[in-house]
Amino acid sequence: MNTANLLNQIAFIKEIDKVKYIQRKTKLFNSDRNENDAEHSWHLALMAIVLAEHSDEPVDILKVVKMVLIHDIVEIDAGDTFIYDSQKNHSNTDEERLAANRIFGLLPKQQADELIAIWEEFEAGETKEAKFAKAMDRLEPLLQNTSNNGGTWKEFDVSYKKVYEKKSVIKEGSSTLWNYAEGLINESVEKGILKNE
Amino acid sequence: MNTANLLNQIAFIKEIDKVKYIQRKTKLFNSDRNENDAEHSWHLALMAIVLAEHSDEPVDILKVVKMVLIHDIVEIDAGDTFIYDSQKNHSNTDEERLAANRIFGLLPKQQADELIAIWEEFEAGETKEAKFAKAMDRLEPLLQNTSNNGGTWKEFDVSYKKVYEKKSVIKEGSSTLWNYAEGLINESVEKGILKNE
Repeated sequence: MNTANLLNQIAFIKEIDKVKYIQRKTKLFNSDRNENDAEHSWHLALMAIVLAEHSDEPVDILKVVKMVLIHDIVEIDAGDTFIYDSQKNHSNTDEERLAANRIFGLLPKQQADELIAIWEEFEAGETKEAKFAKAMDRLEPLLQNTSNNGGTWKEFDVSYKKVYEKKSVIKEGSSTLWNYAEGLINESVEKGILKNE
Repeated sequence: MNTANLLNQIAFIKEIDKVKYIQRKTKLFNSDRNENDAEHSWHLALMAIVLAEHSDEPVDILKVVKMVLIHDIVEIDAGDTFIYDSQKNHSNTDEERLAANRIFGLLPKQQADELIAIWEEFEAGETKEAKFAKAMDRLEPLLQNTSNNGGTWKEFDVSYKKVYEKKSVIKEGSSTLWNYAEGLINESVEKGILKNE
């Protein structure tokens, strides 16, 4: 029995409970209740599992699942940044790196190193697993906003051009999912729930 | 591109959003806010990943993660049953089977069959993966109740004997985690947050 490892792991398990309090801008499907990061991460993990066949390249699905389960943990310290916020760049800020080192650093060293590496890989978005994980992260709020009559697009006055640009990250992971997503975006403009600018 | 598969998968992804509305009896760590099934499932998945080394037998961790991510989906139709409710048996009711067939049945047949089989395997609790997944499901609320000054034990007047009996399921998956859990339970009696009956 490795008691030292276990106590470190328990400390991590308790700390990440805070992810459940981090509110996203996006609302749950067909509702006006904000989603939190834990719910979001759970949903992405199941999306990755059921949509894996649509990845352009075969992926290590366990790695993708780990990525999406942990990708927002840094927000415990760094906070949620809205994707359409033009003031603050979400990716790989020093603040997020510090947060990753502190929070994953609660774990035994080998696990901490593994999860920090997986988080860095997700953020960099260059491997096939990171590309597919990022596709999930972009697809979920698209499904939510289309089910919510425009959702955050209307609430924050976001244009077609901006949405199209942000969502095209999906294309990097899956041409099938991108075709579907592109259709949803175009349909949203036709329906008048996304402004054509 | 398999469009029929994709549309079925999207229907499933939308349906399971409802898991985020299912309130558990247990509260988040150090708080009085109820946890919902999606948050709970996310937490169990990460617990399984970081605690895997403590399983008595090596496990297929992807299967364990799938189990805990989906184990409460049937509650969309069947509702959450409190573990200390003596009136209703939680396991494998006809209602839950019907729910599993309906909800996983939204997916393409092969995926539906796979996830129903994984859910059945979890419920049966006989394989090493199911035993370890169930250990996670019992350990999380134990950590929550001890962090919440007794939490649901006090709220629902649950005794040491009952808690000990329910939590001993942890032993089936991991003697290390059971040693730790047993210590927490005994400590809770000493602290007076769990009644010694």
